[in-house]
Amino acid sequence: MTLEVGVLGYRFMGKAHANAMARLPMFFPDAPEVERRVLVGRDESALSDAAERLGFDSTATDWRDVVDDVDVFYNLGPNHVHREPSVAALEAGTPVFCEKPLAPTLEEADVMAETAREAGDDVPAGCAFNYRFVPAIRYAKRLLEAGELGEIRQVRGRYLQDWLVDSDAPWSWRNDEEMAGSGALGDLGSHTVDLLRFLVGDDDLAGDIERLSGHLKTFVDERPVADDAGETRPVTVDDAYSAQLEFENGAVGSLEGTRVAAGHKNDHTIEIHGSKGSLRFSLERLNELEVLREGDRGYETILVTDEDDPYVDHWWPPGHVLGWEHTFVHENYEFLSAVADDREFEPNFEDGLAAQQVLDAIERSDERGEWVALE
Amino acid sequence: MTLEVGVLGYRFMGKAHANAMARLPMFFPDAPEVERRVLVGRDESALSDAAERLGFDSTATDWRDVVDDVDVFYNLGPNHVHREPSVAALEAGTPVFCEKPLAPTLEEADVMAETAREAGDDVPAGCAFNYRFVPAIRYAKRLLEAGELGEIRQVRGRYLQDWLVDSDAPWSWRNDEEMAGSGALGDLGSHTVDLLRFLVGDDDLAGDIERLSGHLKTFVDERPVADDAGETRPVTVDDAYSAQLEFENGAVGSLEGTRVAAGHKNDHTIEIHGSKGSLRFSLERLNELEVLREGDRGYETILVTDEDDPYVDHWWPPGHVLGWEHTFVHENYEFLSAVADDREFEPNFEDGLAAQQVLDAIERSDERGEWVALE
Amino acid sequence: MTLEVGVLGYRFMGKAHANAMARLPMFFPDAPEVERRVLVGRDESALSDAAERLGFDSTATDWRDVVDDVDVFYNLGPNHVHREPSVAALEAGTPVFCEKPLAPTLEEADVMAETAREAGDDVPAGCAFNYRFVPAIRYAKRLLEAGELGEIRQVRGRYLQDWLVDSDAPWSWRNDEEMAGSGALGDLGSHTVDLLRFLVGDDDLAGDIERLSGHLKTFVDERPVADDAGETRPVTVDDAYSAQLEFENGAVGSLEGTRVAAGHKNDHTIEIHGSKGSLRFSLERLNELEVLREGDRGYETILVTDEDDPYVDHWWPPGHVLGWEHTFVHENYEFLSAVADDREFEPNFEDGLAAQQVLDAIERSDERGEWVALE
Amino acid sequence: MTLEVGVLGYRFMGKAHANAMARLPMFFPDAPEVERRVLVGRDESALSDAAERLGFDSTATDWRDVVDDVDVFYNLGPNHVHREPSVAALEAGTPVFCEKPLAPTLEEADVMAETAREAGDDVPAGCAFNYRFVPAIRYAKRLLEAGELGEIRQVRGRYLQDWLVDSDAPWSWRNDEEMAGSGALGDLGSHTVDLLRFLVGDDDLAGDIERLSGHLKTFVDERPVADDAGETRPVTVDDAYSAQLEFENGAVGSLEGTRVAAGHKNDHTIEIHGSKGSLRFSLERLNELEVLREGDRGYETILVTDEDDPYVDHWWPPGHVLGWEHTFVHENYEFLSAVADDREFEPNFEDGLAAQQVLDAIERSDERGEWVALE
Repeated sequence: MTLEVGVLGYRFMGKAHANAMARLPMFFPDAPEVERRVLVGRDESALSDAAERLGFDSTATDWRDVVDDVDVFYNLGPNHVHREPSVAALEAGTPVFCEKPLAPTLEEADVMAETAREAGDDVPAGCAFNYRFVPAIRYAKRLLEAGELGEIRQVRGRYLQDWLVDSDAPWSWRNDEEMAGSGALGDLGSHTVDLLRFLVGDDDLAGDIERLSGHLKTFVDERPVADDAGETRPVTVDDAYSAQLEFENGAVGSLEGTRVAAGHKNDHTIEIHGSKGSLRFSLERLNELEVLREGDRGYETILVTDEDDPYVDHWWPPGHVLGWEHTFVHENYEFLSAVADDREFEPNFEDGLAAQQVLDAIERSDERGEWVALE
Repeated sequence: MTLEVGVLGYRFMGKAHANAMARLPMFFPDAPEVERRVLVGRDESALSDAAERLGFDSTATDWRDVVDDVDVFYNLGPNHVHREPSVAALEAGTPVFCEKPLAPTLEEADVMAETAREAGDDVPAGCAFNYRFVPAIRYAKRLLEAGELGEIRQVRGRYLQDWLVDSDAPWSWRNDEEMAGSGALGDLGSHTVDLLRFLVGDDDLAGDIERLSGHLKTFVDERPVADDAGETRPVTVDDAYSAQLEFENGAVGSLEGTRVAAGHKNDHTIEIHGSKGSLRFSLERLNELEVLREGDRGYETILVTDEDDPYVDHWWPPGHVLGWEHTFVHENYEFLSAVADDREFEPNFEDGLAAQQVLDAIERSDERGEWVALE
Repeated sequence: MTLEVGVLGYRFMGKAHANAMARLPMFFPDAPEVERRVLVGRDESALSDAAERLGFDSTATDWRDVVDDVDVFYNLGPNHVHREPSVAALEAGTPVFCEKPLAPTLEEADVMAETAREAGDDVPAGCAFNYRFVPAIRYAKRLLEAGELGEIRQVRGRYLQDWLVDSDAPWSWRNDEEMAGSGALGDLGSHTVDLLRFLVGDDDLAGDIERLSGHLKTFVDERPVADDAGETRPVTVDDAYSAQLEFENGAVGSLEGTRVAAGHKNDHTIEIHGSKGSLRFSLERLNELEVLREGDRGYETILVTDEDDPYVDHWWPPGHVLGWEHTFVHENYEFLSAVADDREFEPNFEDGLAAQQVLDAIERSDERGEWVALE
Repeated sequence: MTLEVGVLGYRFMGKAHANAMARLPMFFPDAPEVERRVLVGRDESALSDAAERLGFDSTATDWRDVVDDVDVFYNLGPNHVHREPSVAALEAGTPVFCEKPLAPTLEEADVMAETAREAGDDVPAGCAFNYRFVPAIRYAKRLLEAGELGEIRQVRGRYLQDWLVDSDAPWSWRNDEEMAGSGALGDLGSHTVDLLRFLVGDDDLAGDIERLSGHLKTFVDERPVADDAGETRPVTVDDAYSAQLEFENGAVGSLEGTRVAAGHKNDHTIEIHGSKGSLRFSLERLNELEVLREGDRGYETILVTDEDDPYVDHWWPPGHVLGWEHTFVHENYEFLSAVADDREFEPNFEDGLAAQQVLDAIERSDERGEWVALE
């Protein structure tokens, strides 16, 4: 059986997922066969170029024509386009893989998760938190689950970028509340929240985030419109956010995301301290994990490229490092396999919703100036 | 003229300051001459041993006999002993050098600062925030003052230790609210707050901290008493604290301190992002500073041991690294020179008070569960 | 026009090149179209599986049937199989891309280079030194060519692996002089020599290596045969080699390669000091380059993933790191474009020969115990 | 009993040792009492200033008046002044502590070692290789002696400085063969050779260096004379040296030292690979040691500042890092204790001679262009 895939979105994420699908046969031969059937977008000329380049059979300008006509629907559009097509697809019984954050607002995320629930477990509704699929992160999860760090006490998650340091960097949809929902919070924070949930969310580690104090900040209030000299548009989202967390088991944590940290391109860092050990991960050196186990005196820097490390046997011999894009191959492998087997996939829309609840709580906390509880 | 110095406290800090004074003649020949005249403590036998070893002429068991009988009084006792002797000394017109945090509570710090104010500028009242005297920190301040980082937008201060990771690590006065005031907050946080005030507190950088949200956490509620099998005492202070900050100029920041971070012995890290650049410092590699200036693509790792780096010409040729204790020599040089010249010294009791106000605000915020303003 | 490619070898290198060819259309749309026409090997069953997985139309068990029947011939077999098929292909006018080292011995390399010379410039004969195609290495070359490091004085090249640390690690063809020519020297040293030639070989940098002193070492004399309990075979190549170099311009250098350095999986490090600056590169962190320019006080750590960095615009936004395999995509792009345009490609067989001359000189020097001159 | 010490040399090394002696009472209370009795030099005015600052009772301009009039003689003069006063002191039965390298030439070192031998074990003759006294190095030795790295296979020692990068850096005695013996070789190489001998020289590790191939290089042939515009003097020593080594047990190694490596101030690096593990040390981060033990996947970064680490209990709590100068305190403690107890001290003149034999072999090998054996 070949899965016919329809994909909405043909820019950065479209390319990342198309590439991932294209690489499966050579590296994950037990993955289901995939046909990139139709690419969906509005600009017909750009769309047609992209379809050819990304290996799609055809194009469509209305996702309504696609969602019930394919075996799987990928929603890779801007955040404000996540809900409607995803809901329609799920209602049509079509599995959906939706980019993160699940939606611009909690309300929309709620609707999407509810729809996924109704669609049932055999219609996978995945939320594409790709960093769960970094081998070093999976390896970290193994250690955590094996109790190597003991009970979790403190976590830190930071995602630092620099593309808005310059006050004259051009405006984009990512600066607009209507389209993006939020700024660094949704774009970067959703990744960090999901990664922490994935790593320490188990009840015997730290459990859920129970309450938090959040803060949002916009440093540059308006930005120039590209190709339109003199024009500016208002920035209606945050340039940076932070939060303090408290988990179910009493562990504490801090979150931070920013687009104005000079010198940090894509610096997503996770640090975890437990009663027995510690670990550190940084996305800019994603093949490495630093681990301190009970009895150790310092962090051991592990190159997570050995044969028995997660996913690594599919690729190259030890020491031949992987890149960012491999996370997409891994998540596509897992998602499409779930689709082919009619079984659940994680992270799913519930995970997307859970992250959104945290983001929403951060916004509520910021507005009220006080700690808020997660429901 | 020789300054006769009386020192209260003969353990860790007593040794650090005695050593600093002893080293001045060889390395800072223009420092005033100092006589370590009297060492003050309660345990006569331990005191007498310490006095001999640390080079004091005599001992005393009551600081009341000392504070108006010396040219300078060093208060290096536990936090709850900071106020009374310091106030008495200042009232007697004796300059005081007091260890940090200035006091266990804001109220006491207020009294101390008020007394210092009344004593006047020619009676220096110093608060021994030694990390202001790390060459790399002074070098960082130079860069900041020269505008190399532009306007400050984000700061991060973390102080991680691990000596309480083990739930069976013994109880000490540092775990007691009466004696210490607070835990990681006062002990570690006071350093971090002072360092950030020192580095970015100028009006044209970030200015004062205006408001904050704080959080305190105790992971281990009671600890065994050393030498008393089976006995435990309650831990009445925090093992870890965190805070989110907002500065006068709109910059945001985060603070964290902990005594339960496995793998971090004395890891005091400062990170600053401005509109033009970034910098990073870590105490465990205190000879280094990482700097990113406008136009740079990454951090430059600078070994701050060149001849024209702050204080370095007093020591060794480039590349011959300094240690933690050198910060005490530098601060003693500056403080004692100020005493000899009847001029002000910074950090002074006002700085100690300012740090205390931040710590107090963190505690108030933690109690109320909301952001609080600094007065 | 579509280039029909025949490939000898279907293991590690076969997979790396097949993957590279497969990825060209999506990421290098101006690359020539390529048909993976025939995969050549001896074990028909394994070959057939590989062909399917790697996307080849057909298989062949004799390269003689292939070399004049395709537009391009890839020779990815063990070193002792490099000469004969490559020579046959070139004599048939078929461009060849041959894995490194060019040959097990200088004599064979000489024959191959001579054949390539006779075939002429419009029959590209490439030697697949893939590390020339790391973006950070290309970026380093730009800096060197722009004179940022001044005249070169000292270079260091080290390639550390650990897969033979264990004395019971199984014997393979890489331990056999007949098949491999040499051990760490040929396998790792050829990479290092080529990279240094590429980076500093220009006359106004350091020029050619003029003379050297080499040393070879075998720590484990025999190794067990896998799947044959109790059987061992002799190790007839080096486990480690080193060399001291002197370049045309008077610069000095050192080389080292080893398969028994515990903790180093694929650690290829290049360090260069010139009269004005320095740089460092390490393959295990291949997205980074450390650079010190005139006037800098320390190395700047550059993440070479910006849009205008070499090859990067074909891939992902800044900070989305590439992996080891991308070097193969880049070299296939360059090589196949040269084939399509009937123009020269570098590194070519002359470069392969030049590296072999250095390796040969290291062996001669080791035998004689004295410095030897390169011809 | 108080040891009366006479010291020849009052610049960099004079200050380093005087400081070390001054610090003993406070930190090493069981060290013998020391009186800095007489400081020896030629420039009376500078000498007198130095004596006052460094805490000496008196001065002398002729070492002949001193060597048999003190309990201990420190020879801290330039290399060409090492032999005569040291020999005279030993012949007078006065223990000697001599800076490294022991002598400018092997011949002189031979005479010195012979004299020390004749003086007998109760007249300690120490060679001041201070890096043996870095806590992290002592800790490394513990690991090596405990067999944690197994049999040693490969070592690397590099000492990189940058103070002669600039061709206009002024001439000094260190550039003169008569006075210094050699350049980077003697000044830096002697340290590296001694450290490797100390760490792996035991028979069950690697044993002695048996043979080597050496290389010397001078990049800048003449340098300006400070304060004498237009004048230059020839550089008659090496700016950089390198060597390949073979040890008694078959281990191999490489050495390098340079004064023209931009970006490296005092970067002395030791790397060791054994059959079971690896370790790394760098002087610019001298509180750290990186260790990989059997079964580990990567290096563990250890901050060697715990209470039970070598010498650390004399200083500060864990994490309060030491500096370069502390190595001098440790070596003075050990040397002076040996003197007080009439027992041997290591490193002694035999160790100084052994290092000199290696340096001499490197020079001989460089001249002949071939490997040479150590006697």
